[in-house]
Amino acid sequence: MENPSLKPWSDCARHLVAVAAGRESADLVIRGGRVVNVHTREVLDGWQVAIADGRFAYVGPDAGHCIGEQTEVIDADGQYLIPGLCDAHMHIESGMLTPAEFARAVIPHGTTTMFTDPHEIANVMGLEGVKLMHDEALMQPINIFTQMPSCAPSAPGLETTGYEITPDDVAEAMEWPGIIGLGEMMNFPGVVNGDAKMLAEIAATQNAGKTVGGHYASPDLGPAFHAYAAGGPADDHEGTCEADAIARVRQGMRSMMRLGSAWYDVETQITAITEKGLDPRNFILCTDDCHSGTLVNDGHMNRVVRHAISCGCDPLIALQMATINTATHFGLERELGSIAPGRRADVILTDDLTTLPINRVIARGVMVAESGEVTVDCPHLDWPQYARKTVHLGRVLEAVDFEIAAPEGANSVRAKVIGVVENQAPTKALTRDLGVVDGLVETDEAQDVCQIALVERHRATGEVVNGLVSGFGYTGRMAIASTVAHDSHHMIVVGTSREDMALAANRLGEVGGGITVFKDGEELALVELPVAGLMSDAPARDVAAKADAMVAAMAACGCSLNNAYMQHSLLALVVIPELRISDLGLVDVTRFELTNLIEDH
Amino acid sequence: MENPSLKPWSDCARHLVAVAAGRESADLVIRGGRVVNVHTREVLDGWQVAIADGRFAYVGPDAGHCIGEQTEVIDADGQYLIPGLCDAHMHIESGMLTPAEFARAVIPHGTTTMFTDPHEIANVMGLEGVKLMHDEALMQPINIFTQMPSCAPSAPGLETTGYEITPDDVAEAMEWPGIIGLGEMMNFPGVVNGDAKMLAEIAATQNAGKTVGGHYASPDLGPAFHAYAAGGPADDHEGTCEADAIARVRQGMRSMMRLGSAWYDVETQITAITEKGLDPRNFILCTDDCHSGTLVNDGHMNRVVRHAISCGCDPLIALQMATINTATHFGLERELGSIAPGRRADVILTDDLTTLPINRVIARGVMVAESGEVTVDCPHLDWPQYARKTVHLGRVLEAVDFEIAAPEGANSVRAKVIGVVENQAPTKALTRDLGVVDGLVETDEAQDVCQIALVERHRATGEVVNGLVSGFGYTGRMAIASTVAHDSHHMIVVGTSREDMALAANRLGEVGGGITVFKDGEELALVELPVAGLMSDAPARDVAAKADAMVAAMAACGCSLNNAYMQHSLLALVVIPELRISDLGLVDVTRFELTNLIEDH
Repeated sequence: MENPSLKPWSDCARHLVAVAAGRESADLVIRGGRVVNVHTREVLDGWQVAIADGRFAYVGPDAGHCIGEQTEVIDADGQYLIPGLCDAHMHIESGMLTPAEFARAVIPHGTTTMFTDPHEIANVMGLEGVKLMHDEALMQPINIFTQMPSCAPSAPGLETTGYEITPDDVAEAMEWPGIIGLGEMMNFPGVVNGDAKMLAEIAATQNAGKTVGGHYASPDLGPAFHAYAAGGPADDHEGTCEADAIARVRQGMRSMMRLGSAWYDVETQITAITEKGLDPRNFILCTDDCHSGTLVNDGHMNRVVRHAISCGCDPLIALQMATINTATHFGLERELGSIAPGRRADVILTDDLTTLPINRVIARGVMVAESGEVTVDCPHLDWPQYARKTVHLGRVLEAVDFEIAAPEGANSVRAKVIGVVENQAPTKALTRDLGVVDGLVETDEAQDVCQIALVERHRATGEVVNGLVSGFGYTGRMAIASTVAHDSHHMIVVGTSREDMALAANRLGEVGGGITVFKDGEELALVELPVAGLMSDAPARDVAAKADAMVAAMAACGCSLNNAYMQHSLLALVVIPELRISDLGLVDVTRFELTNLIEDH
Repeated sequence: MENPSLKPWSDCARHLVAVAAGRESADLVIRGGRVVNVHTREVLDGWQVAIADGRFAYVGPDAGHCIGEQTEVIDADGQYLIPGLCDAHMHIESGMLTPAEFARAVIPHGTTTMFTDPHEIANVMGLEGVKLMHDEALMQPINIFTQMPSCAPSAPGLETTGYEITPDDVAEAMEWPGIIGLGEMMNFPGVVNGDAKMLAEIAATQNAGKTVGGHYASPDLGPAFHAYAAGGPADDHEGTCEADAIARVRQGMRSMMRLGSAWYDVETQITAITEKGLDPRNFILCTDDCHSGTLVNDGHMNRVVRHAISCGCDPLIALQMATINTATHFGLERELGSIAPGRRADVILTDDLTTLPINRVIARGVMVAESGEVTVDCPHLDWPQYARKTVHLGRVLEAVDFEIAAPEGANSVRAKVIGVVENQAPTKALTRDLGVVDGLVETDEAQDVCQIALVERHRATGEVVNGLVSGFGYTGRMAIASTVAHDSHHMIVVGTSREDMALAANRLGEVGGGITVFKDGEELALVELPVAGLMSDAPARDVAAKADAMVAAMAACGCSLNNAYMQHSLLALVVIPELRISDLGLVDVTRFELTNLIEDH
């Protein structure tokens, strides 16, 4: 299944040597450009490159001797040649696109290498889902490496995922050709407390000579942080301030600074380099999560590099942080990340090192994009039916499934309410007094309280956990449902109307997952995500358009939050405080325990 | 056999985490010091380290919580803590010491990691010899990694070594625990010309995920150099000027700058950093070859780092070039080369980052040297008898074996003479007219021409190849013999007296190899090198004293050359121009072919 065009360096060394020596001809020569050398951190005016077998054969002042009758020659006409950009940590599922369509979306932006953690599909489909993502990744014309997800479930005991990842799974995956390491070790309390399962996953990765991804999402830089570092994670992208970045690099970890669709952690951390003057080699740029709209409208790693430069970073250092630093981190510095002999011939032609227009993109020696348009095929895996049928409701849901019973005889209740906070991932644990009608707790538009339900969708148990949420501003009769529901990816339904909630839930069961918005009993918007209920295999442009329509529909229902849909999809993320919902009930994430919806009087 | 005190990080992660978290106690805590952080390139005043299981468990502002009743606490009293020094490329045999005794000599200088290429013993004993070196290396209290020798013979067709190294040998060695990569690929013409055997060795190394050492000993930086880089070598220590260093790093290779006993290539190349301002991460320091006298009197990697600083290099960058840069190059950055959690606890206490006094050395958490004295055992391998009996002459040699017959009836001859050049490795191909007595070519003190003989010693063929050499200045009746005779390590005998030449050769046969100097039929000096005829298992101090006596004896015989013995031992190195001797005859190393001693008239 792997893209057959790429041979290991050792398999083409004879030819590369012959081309560099002038005995054989290159496939492609680029001259008239200025080569950015990320090893020395300098621009080499007039340097030329010769490419053969998808790799650089010659990089030097004059490739004339590498040109034969069959050699294509490109005149760069003064453009810079920079290495293809690398995204050091990211989740393809965040784009709601399959790997093929994600690749197609980012190639015109100059991304030629991605380190992807298919954590979301692991929760839905386990190791088998990871393998499918891995396999489609390897079929692409660019380099997509897979980080084996480490934490499914993210919060054992507080949620039930579709599948669990075990240390044996990790050890097995380490043998696959595209696995580059372990995905972010989110269970940082587990590591700090010496959890045997987490340490076994790390050990399996280290023993395979691969890179352990980190995720230390706490501002505490005391002994707990040091204990986490002692456990083995080699990087972390959860830093949010300069002190975080510095602390990580001082521990021998690499600081991954992210600019995602909703992450803005570069500007606040890059001062470690631009102001504190630390050695930049251990700083890396990444996106973590990008929506399809960001990919369509704003870019991908080119957006991150431009942003880093706009924050005052030297452009050559910014490029190093998206090329060779990343390659070195994953043990790939002799394979990619620079314009040097033997490496994969991944190169971008650009007019300007600050604004970084992506004129042409070459991956493995093949022109893959010109002027923003992909010029190559991104093959789709023939996704099996079981990957397209992952929404198992077990039955048709009805309004009654969304009823919240009040205690016998109560006229009103005091209830715990999940409080969504604008522009923040943590929620507030609110308490609200709500009315009771016919023995059922009522929503309250005046207090901006509506219902939330977690609908089990992995094992067709038919279970629905009901709760209350505030902050969306919904008015009238509506519901929104999503099978993207981090991290266990059951279905989250939020609504003011139990009837519409049932309609929305059943609709997603019918289309195999995605997002739908209902108002007054009618569907306003639908984003179909048939692959694992998480991804579409339609083009990014189409998915982005549907997502835009979905956000517009949320607004039409009265919601005025920024990133309203992201807020929705994170309400089951039972590792971030304060109050969340899971298939097991309402979760107090400050105490990591289940809690009651209705407070005792 | 491996030093049992070192467990992999993954095997002690649970304990390291517990120590860092304060739940368990460290073995050792060092406080009151200033920690040099080579990841960030900064000095962290007051930082403390806690060590457990031979690795760093905690590195931070306060290790108080890691101290228990059994914890040893050292007050660094303001000293700097720097990572143990790494020698990135070196030949242990050059010290004429076994790995154990070499380790014992360099530990007080702060060397805690060496990347050693046992190229010399490979020529004498093949893969079996490499394995013995590898095994003794792994027994030491410091980290000695082995680079699998790539080029035995160095010059196929021009010499016969004791053993040959094949691609299968390389592939086999890649499975051994201490093999870190391929030793310097000296056959650079082979790589440039696509020699299948050389490329197969490189491929076996790359496919094992290990590092291919380079050796491009030519000033030609044109297509041949680029072709070499395209073949896969990842570093090179043969650069001698700034342009060499820059050229290598631009190709994605690491520039190893060496200061050996007789190599002075740091000052001439380090300007690439200090003046040209290139990113220093791809520059590394090494020694390549150090005599025991240098180790005893001057130091080892501490000498190189001091020298780099004296050349204007920032001390922290110089330290990076002898620690983390090296570790990263060999894929060991998460294992050693810095003071960071999980890494081997190799640390030096020093008062000053410029003069670098080595006060204490800790390796794997154990104090291994204090105030210049080793405080730990360096275990010896029980070297097998076949490794101690490698000088196979086959018979007792006599003066007649060293006769050079003149053509029938000649009264004089015009002969090719190897011209030794002061302070240079290349020789000159001289022509001299010499007298003939009783049909034998005579030496000529007035012209400073004496005899040289290459005595076969690997297969007991009893063969002696005779030639002539000029430049040593020997007078009177003398001979000097050595079984260190790069690279094939037969025996080189130089002398003015055929009788003394026979005495010297037989003497080395008797003691199992080494160096001996005879004058007027009496032995003036002897350095016994019983292990493979290359190394002694006596302490460095003793070997250095005997080597000094040997050099004094050469002077007593009239020799006034600098590095006289090195010149002697390189006269069979048939890869360096212009004229050399091998077991196959006189070699014209400008044309890489055998040539006649006596010129046709």
